[in-house]
Amino acid sequence: MTSPSAAQHHYPYQNEPTWSRSEKAIARKAFDAALGRELHEVIQETKKMASQIHQSSDLWDLEYYLTERRKEIDRKYDFRSSRLSDVLGRLLYENRLGEEDLRGLREEKMKSVRSFAQFLRNGAA
Amino acid sequence: MTSPSAAQHHYPYQNEPTWSRSEKAIARKAFDAALGRELHEVIQETKKMASQIHQSSDLWDLEYYLTERRKEIDRKYDFRSSRLSDVLGRLLYENRLGEEDLRGLREEKMKSVRSFAQFLRNGAA
Repeated sequence: MTSPSAAQHHYPYQNEPTWSRSEKAIARKAFDAALGRELHEVIQETKKMASQIHQSSDLWDLEYYLTERRKEIDRKYDFRSSRLSDVLGRLLYENRLGEEDLRGLREEKMKSVRSFAQFLRNGAA
Repeated sequence: MTSPSAAQHHYPYQNEPTWSRSEKAIARKAFDAALGRELHEVIQETKKMASQIHQSSDLWDLEYYLTERRKEIDRKYDFRSSRLSDVLGRLLYENRLGEEDLRGLREEKMKSVRSFAQFLRNGAA
């Protein structure tokens, strides 16, 4: 007998979409590119903030900015199969990737990705 | 009747040295100058680290550096009378101020300050 907690930690969700090896490769490439672009933005903003530090409060503002960005990036870039459609949907919603970056995914995946992006658009409206 | 905890939080320690108004003014000036110099160092180091960021690990190294400096500065710069001799002693030990910055303190204070600086020198040896 499998306890609910063991199932949660060790087995995929029942309704989890199956990502083929080639789909995972496409997703990984888009995911890594978006992450790279987002990190590049944070690096540029950090350099700008640092160049404008005049007093101690500016130092701690920079520390807070970095902590928040690190937590946000850790939360957002989650490559587990069970999360991947939502993760790609969020990146689409945030214009961190385009549908062309996901070319090659099966239509069922694209539907999930678009649907989550639309859900976020509706929430932000 | 006063409970130990109330005594701890609301009354000075029995053996706490009394700092006169003029001594406090001297201590404050030395304390603020040392704090200003230390913050200036952190600002310079932050600008240097930021200018050398090339990859994400450099970002989180900077975040860690700032968090550690903030905690250390918060701990070190404590202006309560009960802590002041040790605080000034530590700043003396770290060469963040010199005895000349404390001119005007009564000899009993200077003894406490020097004694704590010596204690740290012995510990670091």
